[in-house]
Amino acid sequence: MKKENSVQGILMPIGGAEDKIRSCHILQRFVELCGDNLAHIVVIPSASSIPYNTAAVYERVFHRLGAGFVSTLHIEGRHQANSAAYIQTLQEATGVFIGGGDQLRLMALMGGTRMADALNQRFHAGMHVAGTSAGASIMSRHMIAFGRSGAAPSQRMVQMASGLGLAPGLIIDQHFSQRNRLGRLLTAVALNPGLTGIGVDEDTALMIMPDGKMQVIGFGTVTVVDSHGLTYNGVYSAKRYDAFTVEGLEIHTLQAVDRVASAS
Amino acid sequence: MKKENSVQGILMPIGGAEDKIRSCHILQRFVELCGDNLAHIVVIPSASSIPYNTAAVYERVFHRLGAGFVSTLHIEGRHQANSAAYIQTLQEATGVFIGGGDQLRLMALMGGTRMADALNQRFHAGMHVAGTSAGASIMSRHMIAFGRSGAAPSQRMVQMASGLGLAPGLIIDQHFSQRNRLGRLLTAVALNPGLTGIGVDEDTALMIMPDGKMQVIGFGTVTVVDSHGLTYNGVYSAKRYDAFTVEGLEIHTLQAVDRVASAS
Repeated sequence: MKKENSVQGILMPIGGAEDKIRSCHILQRFVELCGDNLAHIVVIPSASSIPYNTAAVYERVFHRLGAGFVSTLHIEGRHQANSAAYIQTLQEATGVFIGGGDQLRLMALMGGTRMADALNQRFHAGMHVAGTSAGASIMSRHMIAFGRSGAAPSQRMVQMASGLGLAPGLIIDQHFSQRNRLGRLLTAVALNPGLTGIGVDEDTALMIMPDGKMQVIGFGTVTVVDSHGLTYNGVYSAKRYDAFTVEGLEIHTLQAVDRVASAS
Repeated sequence: MKKENSVQGILMPIGGAEDKIRSCHILQRFVELCGDNLAHIVVIPSASSIPYNTAAVYERVFHRLGAGFVSTLHIEGRHQANSAAYIQTLQEATGVFIGGGDQLRLMALMGGTRMADALNQRFHAGMHVAGTSAGASIMSRHMIAFGRSGAAPSQRMVQMASGLGLAPGLIIDQHFSQRNRLGRLLTAVALNPGLTGIGVDEDTALMIMPDGKMQVIGFGTVTVVDSHGLTYNGVYSAKRYDAFTVEGLEIHTLQAVDRVASAS
């Protein structure tokens, strides 16, 4: 994995449906990263169609896990994402948690705003960012907006849009094994050759370190689609939902190194 | 228009169907930029389904317009776009001209290759890049791969993919008035808020200077969709080909400043 320019924050895409009740392995790790009782975690719940519920759930669990301070920035309209108050709150955060829902809804509210710029700058300066489901997808620069299930790629099975660009070289997908999304990730990489596809399973997270190293935590698999050796890419030759040929993509599947320990 | 980091080359997206027979106003300007009899122009014809014809047409016209040296880099397979010989040719070029066809075909061949990197580096170092039709679209980072005609936006009327990223803040469309593409450009901007949409008419070009200033040449209009004041973006709420609401986008239409002079 290439090191991004001068990033100092840790990025933690979560594949959705992470444990919020029992050991809360993934969320606990995020609270630790952010400073435990010194943490200030900002929840962004606005991908959700029920953002106040989402905010309440995560505020409660982060408090229970020992975070010092938790606040919510819900974006009802783009004017809020350009407001000085929201930017100021981000300046004070040690971590941002982006909830699930519809990643395109959140980007429609946040794309090109001062808040998006500030989040990026703070991440580069060392603030950590976790996101689950839609909140994981949105970390990409070339983001999967939505798509169809299935194992084989077809040209229109995925719709791309702009994400926040925290991980400009990665296309991050979620609920990966559970929703049978290999086809859409292969299609996304074929539409964006040179980028790396990342499929994160439910209750699983990838920790992407400032030096570019990656570590899996949680109970599922992270699937990596590496386009480095791509030899043939027929994505342009297919129409609509026809399948196409793509040759030379490499696939790696990664398990949590601490799976046994964390299951105790 | 924001200045891109340290770009020194001029970028010239052309809306397709540029005059190649009479005054050749646009192509003549490109030859001048590249150094006239000292120019070395490299033609990349590989978006085309008849690349050898495309290469022959542009080699002939650039020679006729006084370019000192013209060569062609046709990419039949991705291995060529990773070859030292192709990179070396780019190192010696003063300008690159990207022909029309299917922008997704060209990105499937070139995306993520050493040649794409080298083209970007040379452009930053002062090599000029012109492209017509597909060759204009591909300058975007978030590229319109294909789409439907129509004046009103609808969610799935446009498919996005990665382009070369020479103009990372712009989404460039072409044959704009002639093929009724306002709807797909509005949709592309709604899917990528924060970026600026550029619709270039046929036989028309936009010259984007290293300082970010822009000038229109040729016989049509350049339409700019400015997302700066976007207030509401309902792109996530539509399904398939349903229309959606987007409020606060500004539109500017630009004519050539030298239209009369060049028409003589």
